[in-house]
Amino acid sequence: MQSEDVNFTDHKKNALAKLKIALEKNNVDSKVISLLKKINAIDSYFTTSSCAGRIVVLQLPEIGNKKQAVFLGRWHRKVTFNEVWNALLSFEKGDAWLLTQPPIFHIGCRSLSTANELMKLGVSCGFKHSGIRSFSAQIIVELQSTERMDMPLGRNGDRFVDKRIISLLVDTANTALIRAQKKLLRLENKIEDLIIK
Amino acid sequence: MQSEDVNFTDHKKNALAKLKIALEKNNVDSKVISLLKKINAIDSYFTTSSCAGRIVVLQLPEIGNKKQAVFLGRWHRKVTFNEVWNALLSFEKGDAWLLTQPPIFHIGCRSLSTANELMKLGVSCGFKHSGIRSFSAQIIVELQSTERMDMPLGRNGDRFVDKRIISLLVDTANTALIRAQKKLLRLENKIEDLIIK
Repeated sequence: MQSEDVNFTDHKKNALAKLKIALEKNNVDSKVISLLKKINAIDSYFTTSSCAGRIVVLQLPEIGNKKQAVFLGRWHRKVTFNEVWNALLSFEKGDAWLLTQPPIFHIGCRSLSTANELMKLGVSCGFKHSGIRSFSAQIIVELQSTERMDMPLGRNGDRFVDKRIISLLVDTANTALIRAQKKLLRLENKIEDLIIK
Repeated sequence: MQSEDVNFTDHKKNALAKLKIALEKNNVDSKVISLLKKINAIDSYFTTSSCAGRIVVLQLPEIGNKKQAVFLGRWHRKVTFNEVWNALLSFEKGDAWLLTQPPIFHIGCRSLSTANELMKLGVSCGFKHSGIRSFSAQIIVELQSTERMDMPLGRNGDRFVDKRIISLLVDTANTALIRAQKKLLRLENKIEDLIIK
């Protein structure tokens, strides 16, 4: 047990050092900085990666094949029709997709019981796609919300849909993102309760 | 440890009894029956729920609100344009969506180490959204593939898209489903290796 604790302390130290650099380089979404700080203030946890949720226009050679994915646009906030339309101008081949990706966090945990507590807390805040993703070298909990959308926009450079439809899809993507990002505050409040406890 | 084993044995017995009833009622997709039998043949695992992947036409009051979802059509196989079109004829209110949902399995595990082994095996077969979803009363691993599609087709009874677009979307949904379902065979082969071991 002693050695596990040392291991955890080392991992946490490394993770905090990486986060410090990412913060200095402005590589962390401002929407989650305060939440990350609160998680890291708890003795039993540290954050290893995070995304506040985003809207993405992606070019994929085929569905599910992410290795050759090209980002035509990505935003951690609501987007406008023009932003998505302009991103699509560089669509050349394969399939184009408009994605909403919900907030996601990977969090190192000191023990299985603290991992379980965090997982339950996440689920209670609407991060229902949560689970332990790894526990070999480190115990890592993934917290993920549910508002994903994967909308195909075109194939081989041709768009499936016209401006009116893209405008409706952008509206749908924004609704999903906003709904997902509202859960960040709920999560932050519950994490704060853990600090106070 | 002894009592945990008894607990696992009881849970497995109950799960197998439920599966037997589901099989008798033809409530299990034929594409996964052989895989489920192989998983349950392994001493350390039992299946609690499964879906072979499906294409769905859904009527939703708003995004993420699944409580009032109405299935206008669902198929565990490739669909035709006519099937989706006919399903949309009963679309009355809220938003209509065409979804591809990848295969998903929930599997009870005897121990954390067997859960970890299963999770890794799943990820290696392309079930990349996998993790331990619960380990309080039972240890449950979720194995889920990645080929999702979520396409809004209309709002308040009106269709966003015409027949040509729906035909293209049906094609995209089918491509996603077939790609996802190909992974079932890969998973079954790897599970078979575990039985032989």
